[in-house]
Amino acid sequence: MNLILTLRILGALLLYLGGALLLPVLFSLYYHDEAWPAFIYSSLLCFGVGGLLFTFCKSSKDLSVREGFAIVTFGWTFFALFGALPYLLSGVIPAPIDAIFETMSGFTTTGSTILTDIEKLPESLLFWRSLTQWLGGMGIIVLSLAILPMLGVGGMQLFKAEVPGPTTDRLRPRIQDTAKLLWGVYLLLTALETLLLMLGDMNFFDALCHSFATLATGGFSTHNASIAAFDSSYIDMVVTIFMILAGINFSLHFQLLRGKLGSFHRNEEFRCYIGLFFIISLIIITFNWSGGSYQTLGENLRYSIFQVASIITTTGFATADYEVWPILPQYLLVMLMFVGGCAGSTGGGMKVARILLLLKHAQVQVFRLIHPRAIRLVKLDNRPVDKEVLQSILGFFALFIGIFVIASLLMAACGMDLVSGGAAVIACLSNIGPGLGTVGPVDNFAQIPSFGKTVLILCMLMGRLELFTVLVLFFPSFWRK
Amino acid sequence: MNLILTLRILGALLLYLGGALLLPVLFSLYYHDEAWPAFIYSSLLCFGVGGLLFTFCKSSKDLSVREGFAIVTFGWTFFALFGALPYLLSGVIPAPIDAIFETMSGFTTTGSTILTDIEKLPESLLFWRSLTQWLGGMGIIVLSLAILPMLGVGGMQLFKAEVPGPTTDRLRPRIQDTAKLLWGVYLLLTALETLLLMLGDMNFFDALCHSFATLATGGFSTHNASIAAFDSSYIDMVVTIFMILAGINFSLHFQLLRGKLGSFHRNEEFRCYIGLFFIISLIIITFNWSGGSYQTLGENLRYSIFQVASIITTTGFATADYEVWPILPQYLLVMLMFVGGCAGSTGGGMKVARILLLLKHAQVQVFRLIHPRAIRLVKLDNRPVDKEVLQSILGFFALFIGIFVIASLLMAACGMDLVSGGAAVIACLSNIGPGLGTVGPVDNFAQIPSFGKTVLILCMLMGRLELFTVLVLFFPSFWRK
Repeated sequence: MNLILTLRILGALLLYLGGALLLPVLFSLYYHDEAWPAFIYSSLLCFGVGGLLFTFCKSSKDLSVREGFAIVTFGWTFFALFGALPYLLSGVIPAPIDAIFETMSGFTTTGSTILTDIEKLPESLLFWRSLTQWLGGMGIIVLSLAILPMLGVGGMQLFKAEVPGPTTDRLRPRIQDTAKLLWGVYLLLTALETLLLMLGDMNFFDALCHSFATLATGGFSTHNASIAAFDSSYIDMVVTIFMILAGINFSLHFQLLRGKLGSFHRNEEFRCYIGLFFIISLIIITFNWSGGSYQTLGENLRYSIFQVASIITTTGFATADYEVWPILPQYLLVMLMFVGGCAGSTGGGMKVARILLLLKHAQVQVFRLIHPRAIRLVKLDNRPVDKEVLQSILGFFALFIGIFVIASLLMAACGMDLVSGGAAVIACLSNIGPGLGTVGPVDNFAQIPSFGKTVLILCMLMGRLELFTVLVLFFPSFWRK
Repeated sequence: MNLILTLRILGALLLYLGGALLLPVLFSLYYHDEAWPAFIYSSLLCFGVGGLLFTFCKSSKDLSVREGFAIVTFGWTFFALFGALPYLLSGVIPAPIDAIFETMSGFTTTGSTILTDIEKLPESLLFWRSLTQWLGGMGIIVLSLAILPMLGVGGMQLFKAEVPGPTTDRLRPRIQDTAKLLWGVYLLLTALETLLLMLGDMNFFDALCHSFATLATGGFSTHNASIAAFDSSYIDMVVTIFMILAGINFSLHFQLLRGKLGSFHRNEEFRCYIGLFFIISLIIITFNWSGGSYQTLGENLRYSIFQVASIITTTGFATADYEVWPILPQYLLVMLMFVGGCAGSTGGGMKVARILLLLKHAQVQVFRLIHPRAIRLVKLDNRPVDKEVLQSILGFFALFIGIFVIASLLMAACGMDLVSGGAAVIACLSNIGPGLGTVGPVDNFAQIPSFGKTVLILCMLMGRLELFTVLVLFFPSFWRK
């Protein structure tokens, strides 16, 4: 591990963060919310620490795989720590653990909150909350489509070929080129949603913040009632569509812009994701209808579809309290929490492609029992999947379930009940936001003890970075020369 | 698929069942419980159908793998259907679905019951309930140590080498030899426990029935309060020890009888199983102590250890209502429900060896990320595990979780709450018995609607037969020539 080089790049990242921290100042001055000093001080601290690291840590070597892991994990951790400063310095969130929870929830695009009254916050801090999600989303797109495939994490190398940009084996130039292309798509979609939300009588501030949270599949809102606060079926529809778009592999959006319409149809994961969205929506609508959750079919469609989109994409916006729905719809939503969006999207969870490959693997296993001498390979998009990749995905699944079990156990040790504890963990591990029980869509994470919050912060980080990226750091051999 | 040969062997199995059905007649006559005609008629029906199948279905061919699958799955199904007859004919359980549930729960050594007042049953039927478990346990030992390894199911071929008896590639003679050796151990342990329980002032009838249910890790009791009815710490201790013994690979017991003490120590799965039992017991005792569940340390030890043994071995006997314990102990018990006993024992669940290999696989995956060019194999008992076996185990894990999710979903569709529905499924899929919530240790499965009971019956069957054995039958290509 080249620690010097790692620190230099982390320094550079902090300089970017310092710049980002100046953006809320504009809103603070415009709204006269008096919170601007908190951002100025935070920014200066980032520039100071970042500048020092960048200046004094010099290394002529190029990046290797190990530094890649360290930069990704510590990068996100640094952002969560330094990004928490405005909350602390402004006094809006007095407890450090709470401020870090909120910021980690932002940068990992989770959307779980410890705030009990969001609307009380100064506008600049509301903007910062949404901005952390948007920046986190930018990070995720590049992470999942450019960095992780090269690091070989959890079978993500499967998606190497789909990534736009020139193919080169050196880490840095490739990441930079890919990033620029994909961020173009991300920016375009954000601008489009902001515009469409403003057409629905949302003010610019709310429209921008919600677009940030939608495209990042984050779920932070500027209102206590989330999207329900606007009570507009037009807004619900716009947000639903953009959540679904944000849950799709961004390289597909890129292909679309290049006029390659067929790439959507050819992509098995996309077909599966859309199919799952429609089937689950249909079942939930049916059960909400027979269970009498809504008076009219229109209301049923509006609220059911929104919630399915919000959960499958791991956004976590709410327009309805799904805990008053019948049991089966609730159960289906919990199932979707584990599945998550497409690989290469800003969505979290295990990803549709992995679940698809697991099912195919199980099918091949059964087939082999019947035909012991036949050879049948697991395929995705008509291409056989490499055995190593498949093993990696199976390992990811086992690890995901394992971490879910252990973390839930720790939540139980904090005294949380089985459903709430498990739901809190999956809500954070899959980067969704709300869970069930005491952390349901109309509740928040404030009442969880500090130890539990620490566990959940780790879950958000691990879930967001596809588990392995974080876990390798705990192996002593990672740190050896 | 050679259907004729399959039917012939199923016929032979029914003849054995017909014989077994005559045993309760002895108890009926001794206790004058008037239920003997139900057994005579049931027995005659088995002899009739079995005799017809055995006589008229003649085939000169030898068994192949496909017939193996069909015989195992249909064998257990036939036993559950024909074994349900005494309940129906005696009028003790009027509804066919309930009688089949109870019998399937017996033969799969699950121990879930739909009876609300067990003590009301005639002695002969109580004996039959326990006998179904004991016979099921006999079946499981041979299935997991002789049949499944040869069929290549779910990585069970891993344990091929450990099985006693001559090694030959032909299915029938090998199974018969292995069966005889292992059943000797099974019989011996049953006799020993019966004797020890009688020394604790249990009458012969109760001692025999509870020994049957212990060695099979079944969990059916002759009393409503299960083992708690005897309120004796000596009996609790004896049952605890024999549950633990029943959860160990029976080929290890066989090695022990041959004087090979070291085989226990060399067996990694055994060490892991014992380690898990002690660690979980310790944590639960600690939490029950700090939570004030028990007045004295003696009580705490007695009840906590019994319950851990009962759940990890998937027996399901109860001496305490663990639902009044603190959350963490409950959560740990749920975790153990998924793990289960050792492969080659009468215990259910995913098996300790599979979980161990999953963890090792995940570790190797992380290691590979750090050292992409290094080769590290997953090992068990210092022998490298074949990649095909590992893939098979990973597939088993994914399938187990998948079936758990889908079955829980169906329970939710029946209106069961999240915890009760999920607990009912895992209690049946892992062949444990009691779950949580409305199917907790002081409740039963009576109130579940017929559709839910059908789902649970299927879960018991699939879980007991290591999933794949049942699932292959649903593939059309299985039935083709």
